[in-house]
Amino acid sequence: MKFQVEQAVEILSNTPLVLKSLLGNLSSDWTENISNSEDWSPFDVLGHYIHGEETDWIPRAEIILKQGENIAFEPFDRFAQFEKSKGKTLGGLLETFAELRKKNLETLRSWNLTGEQLQLKGTHPELGEVDLEKLLSTWVVHDLTHIRQIVTALAKKYGENVGVWKEYLSILK
Amino acid sequence: MKFQVEQAVEILSNTPLVLKSLLGNLSSDWTENISNSEDWSPFDVLGHYIHGEETDWIPRAEIILKQGENIAFEPFDRFAQFEKSKGKTLGGLLETFAELRKKNLETLRSWNLTGEQLQLKGTHPELGEVDLEKLLSTWVVHDLTHIRQIVTALAKKYGENVGVWKEYLSILK
Repeated sequence: MKFQVEQAVEILSNTPLVLKSLLGNLSSDWTENISNSEDWSPFDVLGHYIHGEETDWIPRAEIILKQGENIAFEPFDRFAQFEKSKGKTLGGLLETFAELRKKNLETLRSWNLTGEQLQLKGTHPELGEVDLEKLLSTWVVHDLTHIRQIVTALAKKYGENVGVWKEYLSILK
Repeated sequence: MKFQVEQAVEILSNTPLVLKSLLGNLSSDWTENISNSEDWSPFDVLGHYIHGEETDWIPRAEIILKQGENIAFEPFDRFAQFEKSKGKTLGGLLETFAELRKKNLETLRSWNLTGEQLQLKGTHPELGEVDLEKLLSTWVVHDLTHIRQIVTALAKKYGENVGVWKEYLSILK
C-alpha cells in the first residue's frame, strides 16, 4: 500500500475513540494488571501512547523537517509511563491521549507535506537512517500494535474460563 | 478472573462500537484484502462476527439451557461469510452486526442466569463436554481475537512502509 498522509491520518485519528470504546466502561478487573505479571496492563499502554504523543512522533518529525538528517533523535523511553501515569485514572489517560492526538494531527495536517518532504532523512539513535515517511508509517503501525496488545491482555483474563475452547483461540497462546 | 455475566457483557457490548471506530471511515485501501492473500480482510471478519451472532453463541446457549447436555451443537461454519457477505458493504455489515449483537445481549440479560445455570453442560461436536460459562467466556475471547486479527491485517498493509522500524514491531512478524 503506497503511503499517503491522508490515509495514515485515517487510522491515527481513529485510535482515541477505538481505545475509549474498548476500555472506557470496563470494570477494573479487566483493566488492572494481573499481579506479578510483567505484561503491560491497558493502563500502562495508555501512558505509553501519551508519552509517544509528547516526545516521539511529532517532535521527531520536527527534527527531520527543521534540522536535517545529522541530528539523531532523542532515544524514546519505553518505560516512562510507569512513573508518569502514577495517581492518574484510566478515564483521565483516555482524555489526555485524545487531546494530545487531536493537537498533533492538527500540526501534521498544517504542514501539508509534499512527496519531497516525506523523503527527508533523519537518524534514529539505534536503527540509523530513516525518513519522514517511515516515521509516520511507524506511528500508524505502533497505534495498531498497542491496540493488539490491549485486546490480548483482556483476552488473557479469561484464559482459563474458556476451558477446552482454548485450543481454537490463538490469542491465548 | 472469576466469570461474571455482567463483566462478560461489558466487553461484548463494546465490540460493535470498537469495530465501527476502527473501520467505519477507512478508505478501501485499508479494508480490502491484499490480492492473493489467504488472510481474512476486515470485511471477511465482520461477516464472521455476524454469522456467529446468528448461529453460534446464543443458539448454543439455548441448546444448553433448554435441551440438556446430550445434544451436540451444530458445527459452526467458519467460512460461511465468504458467500453470505457477497454484495454487501462494510458499513452495512457494521450496522447488521451492531443490531444482532444488541438483540442477543438483550436475550442474554433477560435470562438472569444463575450460578447453577452457568454450570449446565453441553456437547461441542469436536471438543466434547463444555458448559454455559465456558461458552460465554469463549464468546468474549472470540470478540477480542478478531479485533486482534483486524488490527494485524491493517498493520500489515504498512509492513514495508516502516523500513528499519520493522525490527521493533512484533505485529509485522
